[in-house]
Amino acid sequence: MISIAIVYHAGLGDTETQALAVAQGAASIEDTIVRLLSTDETDERWAELDEADAIIFGAPTSMGSASSPYKAFMEASATAWLEQRWKDKIAAGFTSSGPRDGDKPNTLAQLASFAARHGMIWVGLGLMPGGGSRWSRAHDVNRLGGFLGAIAQTEPEEGACQAVPASDRASAALLGRRVALTAHRWMRGKGTAHEDDVAGATTEETPLP
Amino acid sequence: MISIAIVYHAGLGDTETQALAVAQGAASIEDTIVRLLSTDETDERWAELDEADAIIFGAPTSMGSASSPYKAFMEASATAWLEQRWKDKIAAGFTSSGPRDGDKPNTLAQLASFAARHGMIWVGLGLMPGGGSRWSRAHDVNRLGGFLGAIAQTEPEEGACQAVPASDRASAALLGRRVALTAHRWMRGKGTAHEDDVAGATTEETPLP
Amino acid sequence: MISIAIVYHAGLGDTETQALAVAQGAASIEDTIVRLLSTDETDERWAELDEADAIIFGAPTSMGSASSPYKAFMEASATAWLEQRWKDKIAAGFTSSGPRDGDKPNTLAQLASFAARHGMIWVGLGLMPGGGSRWSRAHDVNRLGGFLGAIAQTEPEEGACQAVPASDRASAALLGRRVALTAHRWMRGKGTAHEDDVAGATTEETPLP
Amino acid sequence: MISIAIVYHAGLGDTETQALAVAQGAASIEDTIVRLLSTDETDERWAELDEADAIIFGAPTSMGSASSPYKAFMEASATAWLEQRWKDKIAAGFTSSGPRDGDKPNTLAQLASFAARHGMIWVGLGLMPGGGSRWSRAHDVNRLGGFLGAIAQTEPEEGACQAVPASDRASAALLGRRVALTAHRWMRGKGTAHEDDVAGATTEETPLP
Repeated sequence: MISIAIVYHAGLGDTETQALAVAQGAASIEDTIVRLLSTDETDERWAELDEADAIIFGAPTSMGSASSPYKAFMEASATAWLEQRWKDKIAAGFTSSGPRDGDKPNTLAQLASFAARHGMIWVGLGLMPGGGSRWSRAHDVNRLGGFLGAIAQTEPEEGACQAVPASDRASAALLGRRVALTAHRWMRGKGTAHEDDVAGATTEETPLP
Repeated sequence: MISIAIVYHAGLGDTETQALAVAQGAASIEDTIVRLLSTDETDERWAELDEADAIIFGAPTSMGSASSPYKAFMEASATAWLEQRWKDKIAAGFTSSGPRDGDKPNTLAQLASFAARHGMIWVGLGLMPGGGSRWSRAHDVNRLGGFLGAIAQTEPEEGACQAVPASDRASAALLGRRVALTAHRWMRGKGTAHEDDVAGATTEETPLP
Repeated sequence: MISIAIVYHAGLGDTETQALAVAQGAASIEDTIVRLLSTDETDERWAELDEADAIIFGAPTSMGSASSPYKAFMEASATAWLEQRWKDKIAAGFTSSGPRDGDKPNTLAQLASFAARHGMIWVGLGLMPGGGSRWSRAHDVNRLGGFLGAIAQTEPEEGACQAVPASDRASAALLGRRVALTAHRWMRGKGTAHEDDVAGATTEETPLP
Repeated sequence: MISIAIVYHAGLGDTETQALAVAQGAASIEDTIVRLLSTDETDERWAELDEADAIIFGAPTSMGSASSPYKAFMEASATAWLEQRWKDKIAAGFTSSGPRDGDKPNTLAQLASFAARHGMIWVGLGLMPGGGSRWSRAHDVNRLGGFLGAIAQTEPEEGACQAVPASDRASAALLGRRVALTAHRWMRGKGTAHEDDVAGATTEETPLP
């Protein structure tokens, strides 16, 4: 069994919808436990993040970057960072926003850089951009061209004010699926402490050219 | 055996020095073949990139982002991208520049986003920033605080115009070592086609919440 | 009279179409001379950039950032940078790409940071994002939600392989218009050398708290 | 008279020190009123931001981007954004962090993109990077190589845990000075409503190539 934690801020409901799609995609892979954590409850559930094999970060894009409640969670993780408790875990990310807003990839870059700080291994969306050729459809997966992670954009036409189109939910589910497969392979490959001692070398031991 | 390709542009010599340090760090791990490729010769050596288990991208930061010869290489890789030939390979990055220039992390973000486009798995530097506490030394590893990858900055005091300090060469070597260990674990974990079929699902098959 | 230079790389024709729209918007303001320069000819026309009151940078987004010919131009401008010849000029930017590609705002950020390095004053698009409310249309100006500058995306439905939709051409024209109005105001405000001596202070003279 | 508002989050005290230096630099220019606002008090002082001719944004870099209290302020400004109340004001930014942390330029990019969303005109630091040549000193202004704005980094050697070196305070003061001079010129150039009607054109009126 591997375990995947999805830490998200619900935003206007759109990021929560996206989180559910990511969870569904991850859970579609056998032997995978998926835990959804809202940033409202991370204080009590910190241990679940420490124990997870992979953490997927999901933040609304608000005024151009991850929402302030999400940023507060990122800062609260400084304790885990200083102890490097998340080192070598698999990481991924997703974001969404209500209006059309070109800054959503910035949020993904912010999350990827944050994960690198924690020493995590980043898995991107792994999909070609949709809609780029004459025969493509507006509702292709990855219609918004995300690479570092999954992007969703609510569309008024979808019926509800914050409705996430099916294409963006599918992209989110495919991200969850990809993270689960990656985490399984990563955990299968786990070797002896010696083999995996990524953090072990000190400056003094490092051979210099 | 695993194989690691380092694709770099020499810059003013500083990035080449950094590339050599990355190579030395990677080669310090048993059963690892390391190949250094300058962007001057990638046209003839494209197959070596396709065959590598991990690719480490090394670009000088020039006027705020990866140098134009490096960018030309990135664009030439569009063929590999369209065929997703580098999908699920391990990736990492490093950058350097002669003068003090705060934009070097931008180059790392550019490289990480580029690797995500290729569907690669990104490994960061995995080191805490140096120099942040009273007892630290100016020559700590990761003195420039890189997270997505290794950063080097030439210092006039080092004796030669483009000299890379020992601390930055050590950071580069530790990045190479980390990539090698990660690639070994990633390859050990390789499962059956079914187990690893990260790319297989289509939109139609994707369960939607 | 004020003069505006637009330096662009044609890309697949889409960025050139966008450059023409920017030029048309700028030229719609009285007493404005607009010069279009392709990066193919900047070597011979460098003086026109030095003499312009405003420079608008236009680069295709290719594999996630400004195209390599554009990057080569940016690097060639290092001479102007070292002499700070473009200091205090007005600057702005635009980008486009053929396929749907979420990384276009990265190119704008790359251009804005580049202009800041030159000591230029950056004018963004100044438009709210289109399409964000129930009553909006898919063909609103700024349908792609750019802020730092104008974004265009070719759409197969437009009839030709690299056709730029009318909405994106309108956004580009509005950027050109905004830059011209800003440059006029900036030049009207020009004071005596004493009044404008932005660069004059040295460290020694700087009062410290 | 022109008025400049500096909105900052104190951080560990370092960003407040930086804010004071920015204020001192701005106040060194005649006929300039400078107001310092902590994000703790913006709720009551919103009108001062609306009335300012220029706003300088100052955020600590915390876990790789603007601190969460600062992000909360940015989100609270959405009301001003929707009404475009800050449109065409002059903007600038600064950031600092305790430990060595390469991500500080990301915070400046975040602030510049945020200001562009508000339709503001961005003024960068306007200084060459310090320390890049054999004859430079470690304590040059702009020793950290910021371009979009001023960067400070506390150094344990400075005597107190969060002490900001004199060089970084000087860089901050020069940013304040530059913003004041820019705002004076920008306000002197103000024309009739017709001349400055940057926002006036609608899509329908926009000439298309």
